[in-house]
Amino acid sequence: MTLPVFDLAAIERTVTSRLVLDTVQDGLIAHAEGRTGVPAPLHMAFPEADGDCHVKAGWITGSANFTVKIATGFYSNSALGIPSNHGLVCVVSARTGQIRAVLDDRGRLTAWRTAAAGALITHAMSRPDATTLAVFGTGEQARLQATWLAELRTISTVLVHGRTLHRANALCEQLRTQGLNARPAVAQDAAAADMIITTTAATTPVLDAAHVHEGAHVTGIGTDMPHKNELPPALFHRAQIIATDDHAQCIHHGDFGHAIRAGTTAQNSDIAAGELLKTPLDRPAAAITVADLTGVGALDAALASAVLDQLLQ
Amino acid sequence: MTLPVFDLAAIERTVTSRLVLDTVQDGLIAHAEGRTGVPAPLHMAFPEADGDCHVKAGWITGSANFTVKIATGFYSNSALGIPSNHGLVCVVSARTGQIRAVLDDRGRLTAWRTAAAGALITHAMSRPDATTLAVFGTGEQARLQATWLAELRTISTVLVHGRTLHRANALCEQLRTQGLNARPAVAQDAAAADMIITTTAATTPVLDAAHVHEGAHVTGIGTDMPHKNELPPALFHRAQIIATDDHAQCIHHGDFGHAIRAGTTAQNSDIAAGELLKTPLDRPAAAITVADLTGVGALDAALASAVLDQLLQ
Repeated sequence: MTLPVFDLAAIERTVTSRLVLDTVQDGLIAHAEGRTGVPAPLHMAFPEADGDCHVKAGWITGSANFTVKIATGFYSNSALGIPSNHGLVCVVSARTGQIRAVLDDRGRLTAWRTAAAGALITHAMSRPDATTLAVFGTGEQARLQATWLAELRTISTVLVHGRTLHRANALCEQLRTQGLNARPAVAQDAAAADMIITTTAATTPVLDAAHVHEGAHVTGIGTDMPHKNELPPALFHRAQIIATDDHAQCIHHGDFGHAIRAGTTAQNSDIAAGELLKTPLDRPAAAITVADLTGVGALDAALASAVLDQLLQ
Repeated sequence: MTLPVFDLAAIERTVTSRLVLDTVQDGLIAHAEGRTGVPAPLHMAFPEADGDCHVKAGWITGSANFTVKIATGFYSNSALGIPSNHGLVCVVSARTGQIRAVLDDRGRLTAWRTAAAGALITHAMSRPDATTLAVFGTGEQARLQATWLAELRTISTVLVHGRTLHRANALCEQLRTQGLNARPAVAQDAAAADMIITTTAATTPVLDAAHVHEGAHVTGIGTDMPHKNELPPALFHRAQIIATDDHAQCIHHGDFGHAIRAGTTAQNSDIAAGELLKTPLDRPAAAITVADLTGVGALDAALASAVLDQLLQ
């Protein structure tokens, strides 16, 4: 009857990138097919402490569990020497309502499902012969996107663009220890890569659409609030194929919505990212393709459920 | 760095009714004074399993913690031999967003704060010389309301009205072991008590307004959804003083709302329950008074926070 709680160390020992990739692939397909439940999230703001808290829930239709995820961001914590983000996931039986376990993951599962979605979609939408990858941003997501995409396809070079050369160098160093050929790049050079993934908290576009080559693919994963914006509307205008992980969400607070409001693309110009994981994309070689990923709550449920199954084995 | 989890046994060992009553009193006053935050809850339904899940959050303005409470109700669980209700409370720092602890209370804290609010308001609104109490309903809330009110004032007799005599007798037996003079009663006799508390899941009124005596007080605590209704609109018409724990909530899904929609009372005829806990009520001896309590989310935060402080001592 004791509530099982698994800490981050236990979760990291158990979970493989393969498990995350497979689960997120199935979850994105389920979401594209309408087989997910994602209720409106609960939001709290604590302006005096420069903090907020989101509670998100979700499930895959018919699955054994649903999840409730608590995520906090208190942005003055660094002054106290503690992380800005905290969180946990409760896994609940969708058959009996019994709370099966708490995954005290400190937000790691969210980072993993974000990385997996980015890598899967970038792989699916890029040309088969694409080999150079550029990441915009130098944080943990930039690292994960590069290393997980490298599990799906060969990457000849990773170009890292950051706001400071110091941080770009630090990420390149990390990527080299993971066997990747990485070097810093200015924005214009990074935008000329075969595959581009943006992982920043930018509020104005991080690249110039004119610098993107024909045949390139661009995935944006950093835009998760209406005031954020990584990819320029002009890029959507040039794109022949646009994918979104959640149509309504990407209009509300993704780069896709910025492009619609700027009049450079139409509201119905996107296809569901999960559809592209079902059948290989018939992609014109010279086409520019774009994916806008804002994060699907039901993937939290799918991943937490799969992780719990592993932990209980 | 390990997430502290406290189970029900630890919580029950630590918490006294005094702690709950004091905390709920302060919380109701804070709520009446607008010093609470209660975001819109998150709701999920699982019709195939006859279940639902509510996630509620809240805080007292300026307090060190906020809480996120997960509560599930799966109403076919009894066939499986497991309880219908489950839940836990996460206590989170409102200063840093760090999750301080999980209280694996199985919904007990909610039961306690409900009982405390009912007892406190019934005591505050009843005539000083009121001594007979009637409870409608025979569940755990009926038991808690009677025993906790008995901590605040002398009760000469508890009349128990239930849908079956068998259950009413069982509750009387429990109450007698707790030192109360209890006996079953038909609805008309129960409605003639000095103090009446209704604790049912009824969808039509459980008593006849004409049976309530002048000078009596009635508290309804069971109506927590729009389709439920314990107290008849005619009772609100007879009442000289009406209290609600949350004005908007009681209109939306309390007995007060049924009375407004029936045209027997005005939308602005209520006063905040917390106000009555600040200064003794100047109550005409012959007045009928009514309290409609629907449950205030910020009280969960106040109570969980106080309980955690005790547990960590």
